[in-house]
Amino acid sequence: MNAFQENLEKLAELAVRVGLNLEKGQEVIATAPIEAVDFVRLLAEKAYAQGASLFTVLYGDNVLSRQRLALAPEEGLDRAPAWLYEGMAKAFREGGAARLAVSGNDPKALEGLPPERIGRAQQAQSRAYKPALEAISQFVTNWTIVPFAHPGWARAVFPSLPEGEGIARLWQAIFQATRVDAPDPVAAWEAHNRNLHQKVAYLNERRFQALHFQGPGTDLIVGLAEGHLWQGGATPTQKGRLCNPNLPTEEVFTAPHRERVEGVVRASRPLALGGQLVEGLWARFEGGYAVAVGAEKGEEVLLKVLATDEGARRLGEVALVAADNPIAKTGLVFFDTLFDENAASHIAFGQAYAENLEGRPTGEELRRRGGNESLVHIDWMIGSEAVDVDGLLEDGTRVPLMRRGLWVV
Amino acid sequence: MNAFQENLEKLAELAVRVGLNLEKGQEVIATAPIEAVDFVRLLAEKAYAQGASLFTVLYGDNVLSRQRLALAPEEGLDRAPAWLYEGMAKAFREGGAARLAVSGNDPKALEGLPPERIGRAQQAQSRAYKPALEAISQFVTNWTIVPFAHPGWARAVFPSLPEGEGIARLWQAIFQATRVDAPDPVAAWEAHNRNLHQKVAYLNERRFQALHFQGPGTDLIVGLAEGHLWQGGATPTQKGRLCNPNLPTEEVFTAPHRERVEGVVRASRPLALGGQLVEGLWARFEGGYAVAVGAEKGEEVLLKVLATDEGARRLGEVALVAADNPIAKTGLVFFDTLFDENAASHIAFGQAYAENLEGRPTGEELRRRGGNESLVHIDWMIGSEAVDVDGLLEDGTRVPLMRRGLWVV
Ligand SMILES: [Zn+2]
Ligand SMILES: [Zn+2]
Ligand SMILES: [Zn+2]
Ligand SMILES: [Zn+2]
Repeated sequence: MNAFQENLEKLAELAVRVGLNLEKGQEVIATAPIEAVDFVRLLAEKAYAQGASLFTVLYGDNVLSRQRLALAPEEGLDRAPAWLYEGMAKAFREGGAARLAVSGNDPKALEGLPPERIGRAQQAQSRAYKPALEAISQFVTNWTIVPFAHPGWARAVFPSLPEGEGIARLWQAIFQATRVDAPDPVAAWEAHNRNLHQKVAYLNERRFQALHFQGPGTDLIVGLAEGHLWQGGATPTQKGRLCNPNLPTEEVFTAPHRERVEGVVRASRPLALGGQLVEGLWARFEGGYAVAVGAEKGEEVLLKVLATDEGARRLGEVALVAADNPIAKTGLVFFDTLFDENAASHIAFGQAYAENLEGRPTGEELRRRGGNESLVHIDWMIGSEAVDVDGLLEDGTRVPLMRRGLWVV
Repeated sequence: MNAFQENLEKLAELAVRVGLNLEKGQEVIATAPIEAVDFVRLLAEKAYAQGASLFTVLYGDNVLSRQRLALAPEEGLDRAPAWLYEGMAKAFREGGAARLAVSGNDPKALEGLPPERIGRAQQAQSRAYKPALEAISQFVTNWTIVPFAHPGWARAVFPSLPEGEGIARLWQAIFQATRVDAPDPVAAWEAHNRNLHQKVAYLNERRFQALHFQGPGTDLIVGLAEGHLWQGGATPTQKGRLCNPNLPTEEVFTAPHRERVEGVVRASRPLALGGQLVEGLWARFEGGYAVAVGAEKGEEVLLKVLATDEGARRLGEVALVAADNPIAKTGLVFFDTLFDENAASHIAFGQAYAENLEGRPTGEELRRRGGNESLVHIDWMIGSEAVDVDGLLEDGTRVPLMRRGLWVV
C-alpha cells in the first residue's frame, strides 16, 4: 500500500472510530457526493470492521441537480424528498442510526443557473430536511462530517494546477488538517480532544464578561452573552456517547452578547463568500452593531449578505483557535467553512448557537440573554500570530488567554 | 451522436414515456446499481424534460453488500433500512411518486459468501421492503423496470467475450428486446400494447377451460383456475394511468388450476437457475402435480428448488408468447427473468399472481379457485416454432390459438 492509500485508510478509520465513535451493531446512514464512491466504500469497510450492522449511503449528484434546476417545471421546484428525511430522522431517533456526512463539493456546481430557481429549490430542501437536521443538532445520535477531496473543490483551492495534481494536493491538506499524518491519528485526536476540553472547562469556570482582541488593525472587545457556554471538541450525544461532529475541528467557541461588542477589527485571513474571496475585511462596532464595514476586495458581495437582516451586522459566535494549528499551517484558503473557520480565532456575523447558552434557549429567550438571531452565519478569521487575547472578568481583572496567537492558559 | 448513444437516449425516453408514462409534475424514485450512474443521469434528464418535479435515486452497491456479508456481526444481518422503504411506500401512496427500477446486475455478485448469512440478510431485506413492494404490486402508482447492461450481467451472457465487447453486445440485445431499434420506439410500443391487449381481451372473453400444448416431447393440458384473468402489456394504476411495468414484455399470462394439469412437457430453451443452466428439462403432470421431473443438465439444482414446498411442483402461471418476438430473435439466454421468460410461451412452477384471478384473492380463497401457492416462482420456456397451442372450451370445443408458435387468432 502506498503512503496515499495508507492515509486514506487512516482517515476513514478516524471518521468511524473518532468522528462517529461507532457502537457495535449500530446502523450508519451516510450521505456523499457521487464522486466519492471509492472513499465511501472504504468508510463502509471500516464501519463494518468496527461492527456496523448496516451501512446505507445516499448519493448526491450535481449533474441531477443541474438538470432539475434547468428543466423542471417552476412549481416542481417546491418539491423535496420529505419522505426520505422524515425516514432518516426516524432512523436516528428510533433506530439509533449514526450519521456520517462526506463533505466536499464543487463551489461552482450551480454556476450559471437562475438564482430564483436555485433559491426556490433550496428553500423547499431546507424545509424538508428540518426533521433530520433537528435530530442531528440535538445530538440524539452520534454524527460526524468527514472531508473528501472532490475534484470541483480541488479546482477552487488550486485553480492553476492540473486536476489530478490539485486533488492530490487537497488530499494532503486534508490529511494534515485532520491529523491523519500523525503516527497514531486516533491517539492524536484523544490528546487534541483533551486539550480542547481543558480549555472549554477553564473558560466556563472563569465566567469572563468579555474577550479583548488586540493586534494590527484590531482593538476589539467582545462582550459575552449571559449564561454563555463554551463548547469545543468531542461532544456527548443525548445518550452520553462522545462523538467528534467535525473533522477537522480546532475551535472552542461561545456566544457573544449581541449588544456588547465595541471597537475595530481587521480580518487576518481572506474570507470565502459566495464563491468569491473577500480580502482586507474590517469592521467598527458600537453597541454590538457593525456601524461601519469595508473590504479591499469583494466588498460588494459582503455588504449584500450583511443587508439580509438586522442581526447580520451583529455577532453570533466568537471562537478561539491556536495559531499553530495544522489547518493554518497548510497556508490555504479552502473555500469551505469546516476548514477555514478552524484555521484561526474567528467571529461570526449572524445567528448564535443555542448550545452556547445554558438551557439551549431559542427565540425570545435567546435574545433576552444577548444571543443574536439572523438568517446568516458568516465566520471570519481575526486571529493570527500577531494577535493577543485577554479575558475580562466582572471586576475588571484582565487575564491573558493568548499571546501571539498561542494559548497561555 | 453515434448510433449507440442514440439508442441509449431512445431507451431512456421509452422508460419515461412508455414505461412510467410519467405525469407532469410527478416525483420519480429510482433505484439502480452504482455502475449505472451515467444511464441514470440520462433517465433523469428525460424525466425532467417530461416535466418531472424531482428525481431521487438510491444506488445499490455490490461492494458494500459483500463487505457487509463478510464483516458485519451475525445479529447485525437482521437489520434492513425499514425507514427507507417505509418512506418510499409513503411517497408512492401519499406523494404520488412514480417508481423507476434500473435492473441488471452481476448474477455472481455474492459468490463465495456464506449462504446462511446471505439468507439471513435477504430475509430481513424482504421483510423491510414489503411496504414498498405492496404499494408497487397493488399499482398504487405507475412504475417500470428498465434494463441496464451491467458489466457482471454482460459477463454472464457472454462469458467468452472481453468485457467491453460483452457490454456492447448486451446493450444491442437490450435495444432489440425493448424495440428501441424500431424507427419510432414509442409508436412501436403503442402497437405492441394494442396487440397484447387485443389477445388479453379475446382470451378473457372466450373463457377457455384449458390450454393444450403440443410439440416435440410435449403433450400438455393446462387447466385454468376458476375466474382466471388474462393479463399483459400496459397496466392501469389504481388511478387509471397506464404504465408498462416491464421493459421488455411479450407475454399474456394467467393462472392455471393447481390440480388440473395433465401430460408431459419438454422445455424449449435452457433455464437459468441459481446462476446455473438447466438444460433438457422435462416434467410429467398428474392431477396438477409434477409426478416426475428431470433434466439433462443442472437437474440437481432444479430438484433442490422443487423440494421447497408442495406448491413448487404445481403450476402458478401459464403464458403465451409469440415465437417471432424480438427477445427470441437475439438467440441469447439472459440469466434474467425479465428477458428469459419473455422469449417464449412458458409455464411457472410455484406461486400464482393474485391479479390473474377475479377479485385478486389471496390465501384460502386463492386456493379454493385453483390458484397455486409456493415460496418459489420459476418460469420455464415451453413454446417455440415447433409448438401448437389450442384453447379447450367447456363443451369440449377445440380452438386453435397458436400454430408453429405464432398466433392464429
Ligand atoms: Zn466557529
Ligand atoms: Zn461559525
Ligand atoms: Zn410470465
Ligand atoms: Zn412468471
